[in-house]
This record gives sequence, C-alpha cells and structure tokens, in this order.
Amino acid sequence: MITLASDFGSPYPAAMRGVIAGGCDARIVDITHEFPRQNVRTAAFWLRELLPYYPPAVHCAVVDPGVGTGRSALVVRAGEHALVGPDNGLLLPAARRLSDAVEVFEWTHDDPASTTFHGRDVFAPAAAAVHDAGVDAIERLDRAHPAEEHVDLAFPEPTIEEPNGHAIGEVLVVDGFGNAITNVPGGVCEGLFGESVAVNDERVPVERSYAVLDPGDRLLTVGSHGNVELAVNQGRGEDAFGVTSGTTVRLEWSVDKKRNDEDSA
Amino acid sequence: MITLASDFGSPYPAAMRGVIAGGCDARIVDITHEFPRQNVRTAAFWLRELLPYYPPAVHCAVVDPGVGTGRSALVVRAGEHALVGPDNGLLLPAARRLSDAVEVFEWTHDDPASTTFHGRDVFAPAAAAVHDAGVDAIERLDRAHPAEEHVDLAFPEPTIEEPNGHAIGEVLVVDGFGNAITNVPGGVCEGLFGESVAVNDERVPVERSYAVLDPGDRLLTVGSHGNVELAVNQGRGEDAFGVTSGTTVRLEWSVDKKRNDEDSA
Amino acid sequence: MITLASDFGSPYPAAMRGVIAGGCDARIVDITHEFPRQNVRTAAFWLRELLPYYPPAVHCAVVDPGVGTGRSALVVRAGEHALVGPDNGLLLPAARRLSDAVEVFEWTHDDPASTTFHGRDVFAPAAAAVHDAGVDAIERLDRAHPAEEHVDLAFPEPTIEEPNGHAIGEVLVVDGFGNAITNVPGGVCEGLFGESVAVNDERVPVERSYAVLDPGDRLLTVGSHGNVELAVNQGRGEDAFGVTSGTTVRLEWSVDKKRNDEDSA
Repeated sequence: MITLASDFGSPYPAAMRGVIAGGCDARIVDITHEFPRQNVRTAAFWLRELLPYYPPAVHCAVVDPGVGTGRSALVVRAGEHALVGPDNGLLLPAARRLSDAVEVFEWTHDDPASTTFHGRDVFAPAAAAVHDAGVDAIERLDRAHPAEEHVDLAFPEPTIEEPNGHAIGEVLVVDGFGNAITNVPGGVCEGLFGESVAVNDERVPVERSYAVLDPGDRLLTVGSHGNVELAVNQGRGEDAFGVTSGTTVRLEWSVDKKRNDEDSA
Repeated sequence: MITLASDFGSPYPAAMRGVIAGGCDARIVDITHEFPRQNVRTAAFWLRELLPYYPPAVHCAVVDPGVGTGRSALVVRAGEHALVGPDNGLLLPAARRLSDAVEVFEWTHDDPASTTFHGRDVFAPAAAAVHDAGVDAIERLDRAHPAEEHVDLAFPEPTIEEPNGHAIGEVLVVDGFGNAITNVPGGVCEGLFGESVAVNDERVPVERSYAVLDPGDRLLTVGSHGNVELAVNQGRGEDAFGVTSGTTVRLEWSVDKKRNDEDSA
Repeated sequence: MITLASDFGSPYPAAMRGVIAGGCDARIVDITHEFPRQNVRTAAFWLRELLPYYPPAVHCAVVDPGVGTGRSALVVRAGEHALVGPDNGLLLPAARRLSDAVEVFEWTHDDPASTTFHGRDVFAPAAAAVHDAGVDAIERLDRAHPAEEHVDLAFPEPTIEEPNGHAIGEVLVVDGFGNAITNVPGGVCEGLFGESVAVNDERVPVERSYAVLDPGDRLLTVGSHGNVELAVNQGRGEDAFGVTSGTTVRLEWSVDKKRNDEDSA
C-alpha cells in the first residue's frame, strides 16, 4: 500500500497517482491533498495523528515550499512503515510516532523533469521504488544512503503544573470544523469533566462530547487525537475563542480532581 | 467492498480508511466526505439516491451530531447490503430504497478511544467486522443484536392533484450546482415539456435539459434522482428561485397534459 | 483501470463509481471532480497534461454543458488508452498527446435514465463496457461505430520570434495555486534563468523555482507541464499579474541567451 498526502488540492495529485499506478502494483490510498498550503508544521501534525491508523505502508507526503532548491529528498524507515518526502521536517513527527526505530535515508535522483513538481517527478517514483523493494530493503536501493543530517521538526511541549492547577500550552492546529487543537494532553481533563476551567481567563465547561451543550456553546474537550481542544457545539472554536495556530492557551482549574474522579467512578 | 460517507471533510476520513485497510481486505470506495456539516437529513437523502448504484457492499456512513452522547450505533441489513452508522435516521431511507427486507441491529461496543470520533473508533471497525463476517451473517457477530427501537427518518410526501393541475411539495436538498431538488416526482412533468408552469406564482419553462435555454435562464426539469428540480442553465437555481432546503414549492399548470403527450409521441 | 474526471464536485461522482464497480472489476482511480464547472477547455488542458502519466487505461471524463441535447457520446482510442466522454472536444487534446494513433468512435445508447446525468447513465456504463471488451476491441462492441465527424478542440499556438527577443502567447489555465499557465513552451526560458524579462511591459525575474525569491515576489518560471507560467512565491500569480484564462501575454527579452547558456554550463 502507498498512501498519498499533500497540499496540492486538485488536479495535480492525479499525476502522482498515475506515476505510482504505472510504476508498481501497490494499492493507492489518499490521506488528503487539502493540507493548508505550504504549511509544513500543520501537515506534520496530521501525518503524526493519522498514519498510525494504517497497516504497514509506504507513505508519500509532500508539502514542499522549498521545491526546486537544494533541499534533499528523504526516505524514512519507521518500523514496518516508510515515509517519502522532502527534507523539511514534515516526516519526522509521524515517523517517531510510528516506531521507536527511525532511520533516515537521503534519496538521490537525477535532474527531475520539473523544478516545481517533485511530488510527481521525485517522490512518487521513489515511493514506488521503495514499495517494490520492500521497506526492509531500503538500503539495498542504489539511490538510498543513510542521511548524515536532516531537518527535524518538533512540536512545543506544554507546561503542566497539576498542584498549582494550571497548564500552559499552545494551539497546534485548527481542524476543518474550527476545533483548536492544543498540545496539552487530554489527561489533564481527568477529574474535570462536568466542571469548568478558565481558558485564557474565561470560564468554560469541560465536557466529553459536544452535544451535551446547546448549539453555539463553547467547551473544552479531549479531541480524537488525545489532546485538549477548544470547541463550540456545531460551531467554530477557533472563532469563539479568538485563537489560531500558535496562540498560547492557559488553562486554570481550582478543582480537587482526585475527589471528582472518585465521585464519577 | 466498503463505502465511506461522512461530513468530515479533510483530513479525518483518512483515519477511517486506515482502520478499515488494517482491519480487513475490503476494497474501499469513498462516496463523499463533503456532506453538509451535521445535516443528517441531507446526507440521508444522498445516501438514498447514491447507494442503489452500488453492487452489494457494506456502507459506513457517519453524520453524527450526537457523537459521544447515549445514541446507539446501528448495523442495518438491506438485502445484500449492510449500512453502518449512528442511530439518528441517517441510514433508513437508503436501506428502504435498497431493499424491502430491512433489519436493524444495534451494535454494542466497548468505550471507544475517543468521545468525538466514532467514525474512526466505532463505525469503521464495525464495518470491517461486518464485511469480514458477511452481510448474511450479521446476527452471528457478538456485538450485533436486533434493535428493539431505533430513530427513523422519512421525507415529507408532496400533495399532487392532477385534475386541479397543481402539486405542493418542498425542496429536500440543494445540490452543489445550486439545483433545488424537490420531493415532487418527475412524473408530474409528463405532458408538460416545452410548456410552462407556475412555480410559486412565477411562470417557468419545463425542459428536459438545461442547455436548450440560454445561460442564466430558469427552468423546471427532472433531475437525475427522478424528482422535479428548480434549476438555472449554467447558474444556481437556489438563488434564482429564492429557495432553500425546506422551502415549500407550489407548481401549477393549466395544460391538457394528455393532449401534449399525444402530440409529442 | 478506469479513471474518472469531471466537474461534478460532490456527491454525484459516487454514482459513477458505483455503476463502474457494479459493471466491471476495473480498479477505479479518480483524476479529479473539481474541474471548473462547465469549462470544457480547462478540463481538456488538464486531461492532456495528466493522462500521459497513467499506464494504459480507460479514461472516463465528463464536462458536459450540452448534456441532454443532441450531442453524441464518444469513445476515443489513443494507442493503448481509451477515452470516454461527450462529443465537445474535451477528449481530443489528451488523445493526441497520448498517441499518434487516434481513432474516434461514436457510442450509441438507449434513452438514458436521466437527461441531466449522462456521467452515470451513459459514460460510466460505456467505460465499463470498453474496459471489459479491451481497448483493442472497441470496434467489436455493437454500440461503437467509427465517427463520421466529431467536435475538435485545439489550444492556440504562441508566436515566438527568438531573434527579435519576444514571444506572444496567452494564459491557457490558472491552476489551484493561482499560477497562470501560458501556451508558451518553457524552452524560451533557456538562457534566461537568473535574468529578467518583460511580461506585458513589466520586468520580472526568470527563475527555476519559487523559493529562490522572497514570499510575495513575482516570477516567470517553467511549470511542471513544461510551459511558461506567471507565478508568485507563496502567492497567486493570477492576481499579481492581473491575468486570467485567455489573457494575452507578451514576453520580451534583450539578453544574449546563447552567451548565458554558455555561462551557466
């Protein structure tokens, strides 16, 4: 299986599908081609959240503002998975989530047919070649060499002080529903469900699901990615909370979580 | 084959594809993930219109404003098809269109990993399990039990009085082209093609195709779903007629349909 | 393999996928369903640019403002490929790009179920039938007959006068990134990279890739389709150059290209 992900929209990904369909017999599954344009960080977040749900596969992911410059092409082995894409950090958070055993290869290639569409001319052929050889045989491919260095990307870590009743994090990504996904792990909500917390000094209920509130009501919940998110039932948390990717989020609670846990147990 | 349909947009459906690809060897076909957000009724309409074109399959459909509340998960058998999704009426119009033999099962499940993304954590695994067992063996799955009750959904029926020359219906759905699809069966147009009718008191020609008119001209036609629709050649009927989902539509004709039929035969 | 392309958006293409999945066992690959509505010329351009990346396949493409009128249905054989769609010129530029051996068949059909959705009722079944029979056996199908005439479509040719240092072309298409793709072949840029040219009297640098410039800077580059395109790094060339599909583009250079080529070699 080869998965495809990009910020290309339509119709460019069709050329990648054609190259892969012509280059190997892999099943092709689209992740999305609607990543926000040129936004490596947001795409890296989603790849990290989505790829672990896949069986072993070759994942070809391209968000590539540096296309046509000197940046390298990478093949990253993460356990039984391989990730193929530009050397700009895009692949690394997903690779580390997929496996503790991450190996980074540089993929050398001839001058591609274009300087602006390496998804078609470099990464799709590379993904087909890796699929054909097998993820465990990357080093046997002439074009693959252990990378001496590569660009990394890491998401900021939140500050959590349970005894003081606060957490300081930031919005990593806003999803298509307008939910503002933070880097604060959902675990901080344990013992707080049904209570309220202060989000940047405004009190908001903590709920397990949107629909327990009225349409338009704000809430703090734990999203499907396991992180705290700022949401609105049937609305856009991004707007209601006035936040966007990168906004600092300070959560404060004055609740005896332990006691609440016992109550709800 | 497992088909997928939702209002999730991008990139969440990719997690469902991964879960299914990892859980069974079914071919995966996307219906759409662009259903209007949280709009169970519109999605139910489209599933009813689209799924009958598929060979026997498991159809996993999720438009689920009540996610994380107490609503049940359903598996509905409709002849050789199965439909999997939330218990909010979404699946029933399609099931009845697919088969006269509709059986509704409740699908029990452990606490899912998330309270907000049952498409990934409940419905995709259920679809894979039903596909693996076979549609004719749903009752042999431990998680499936005949449902004692379930939410239903039906579309309103139009009033048609042929002798009086009028029909009163409503707009069920506006499609992506802006065509306002009513619940009035296209059969009322027999004998009226080339004539005009009054649509909410304004006269509009009845035509078999858009392109016989000038761009921007309004018309009443029979859409591909077999219902009367209010359309504009190369434009948006929704805007030109000032209607939206739920708007009452009154059609009046003063034509001897029978005579026209004979003429055109 | 059957590829699907249209301007249908969502959810109508799902009916075509169902018809094909029920009618033959071909792998189905979506090119796109987001072609600009009713724009045969733009879709014809993209089909010409995208389909050559595919292995031999049946390509079902529908942009069909004349649906339901008298226009014919075509099956076009282009070497080992077949193209299926309406007789409005859509298929021909791609067919000629795919092969020098292009044969055009008219596809006869019974009255389809709808007058507005021949993608589902005529072209998808035709594609399945052609796939089943094999591209080399189209003439053995009862419904296929050599077309006596058919609508053609050709893109305008640019005027290039190398000695005088100018080229006059036009914008064929604007892509989703806002890049204005002209009909001027990229070859005119040889010897001009790193220099500047006048684009409709304004000087713009000629670069091999977007990212060598600052975000927001305009450039002239060679797109992945091999043509000159007017672009902006991380922005929309369409807006920055004030052009759209059909706009005349005059390029002027006063550079000794030959000398530059030697310098850069």
